[in-house]
Amino acid sequence: MKFSEIAVRKVYTTSRKMVKYLQQQEAIDIDVSLFNDYKFSVDQLMELAGLSCATAIAKAFPVKNLQSKSVLICCGPGNNGGDGLVCARHMKLFGFKTEIFYPKRVDKLLYNNLLHQCDSMDIPILEKLPGNQEIAKYGLLVDALFGFSFKPPVRTEFVPVIELMKSSTIPVASIDIPSGWDIEKGEPSEGGIKPELLISLTAPKMCAKKFEGKYHYLGGRFVPPKLAQKYDLCLPEYPDTDCCVLLKK
Amino acid sequence: MKFSEIAVRKVYTTSRKMVKYLQQQEAIDIDVSLFNDYKFSVDQLMELAGLSCATAIAKAFPVKNLQSKSVLICCGPGNNGGDGLVCARHMKLFGFKTEIFYPKRVDKLLYNNLLHQCDSMDIPILEKLPGNQEIAKYGLLVDALFGFSFKPPVRTEFVPVIELMKSSTIPVASIDIPSGWDIEKGEPSEGGIKPELLISLTAPKMCAKKFEGKYHYLGGRFVPPKLAQKYDLCLPEYPDTDCCVLLKK
Repeated sequence: MKFSEIAVRKVYTTSRKMVKYLQQQEAIDIDVSLFNDYKFSVDQLMELAGLSCATAIAKAFPVKNLQSKSVLICCGPGNNGGDGLVCARHMKLFGFKTEIFYPKRVDKLLYNNLLHQCDSMDIPILEKLPGNQEIAKYGLLVDALFGFSFKPPVRTEFVPVIELMKSSTIPVASIDIPSGWDIEKGEPSEGGIKPELLISLTAPKMCAKKFEGKYHYLGGRFVPPKLAQKYDLCLPEYPDTDCCVLLKK
Repeated sequence: MKFSEIAVRKVYTTSRKMVKYLQQQEAIDIDVSLFNDYKFSVDQLMELAGLSCATAIAKAFPVKNLQSKSVLICCGPGNNGGDGLVCARHMKLFGFKTEIFYPKRVDKLLYNNLLHQCDSMDIPILEKLPGNQEIAKYGLLVDALFGFSFKPPVRTEFVPVIELMKSSTIPVASIDIPSGWDIEKGEPSEGGIKPELLISLTAPKMCAKKFEGKYHYLGGRFVPPKLAQKYDLCLPEYPDTDCCVLLKK
């Protein structure tokens, strides 16, 4: 860890009022604890996480502002992609025209079922990445490729979709982290996705300190208070019954 | 089916704008379809259903109005009780002081885990039903005993908790149906629970036509549009990203 990172980290752990930005290993440990100690199922937490992403997106990009443009949700092979599939389904119920690009499918019951749910709700599942002509129909891209367990480099099969999100002028909403970014250090030196909206799940990761987009939401309102205390998360108060909260800059 | 029931039913199926009130068998068929045709897991739908119940309760009985009184959630042995366990957990995260009475536990992984989640979030699980003295600490009772698959009579072990909710002056919030009511005919002839709040899940059941309490919410915003069309549910529009909607009288 470089000195500058230690300094940043210190600021956010010495104040009780500032939300903590997690190192990668802490994020992994909290996730393990939710499943092992608190006995949540992936189905449960993914449903809540995906719902909070859909809600944050609807707040930042209201369906009426998209002027009948579609939203393309790009899903990766792990839990971040699963969050994306859940998000796509809830967005559809919120009135968005959602489509899914899911290049590397995982043959697990949960993922197969999540995809089936989307398919049977008439959400198109694209066979290939839209080209330059086709991309104009989208008003928003959702980056659900990689989550907090990502280690660079980006695998070859995901390079085109990352490149699309990097080069496009269509706003991007990233789930948990901007895909391709280092979880702690942030954007890669060669340049990365610059999302307009970032939805941190459970607690923000350190790379979120480098986020320069317009909206930073926290979602995943399921963290047991004792777990939050153990990791000194200093989570902000969620308003009323909301499943996401806008984080102050 | 008596003539009066046919008449009531007709009113609510001939108008496109009025939400349909389901017969018991329709409710069962829709539930089966959600699992078999749409491949939802119980974990997923119970999480969304319980969250919508907690949200509707928080709207009807804001935490600040309870003046530090507790809420007792009475859970039955089936899915309605599972919804109650999820509801208790979300209510705790919303700031309510929740307690659980769960007299007949089912030794299934999901239910054990849901109970464990509540326990590890410091929600007291009562060993016995509170007596006349102890009941004064509660400002609201949540009836999560029986759902749409209930067939009378009430089993002996649940008579005391039903009697408590019938005789108490503490307001009752019922999940899906007022427990002990016939799903189609409504309140039993000997008198039943009279909830102040009813949260119908997926779609209201016929007995909800007889509900005379103050607030009738619909929750469970997960019904695929094609399924809603197949059963002509005429569901109301949920506002924005809300997970429950107040039904008009």
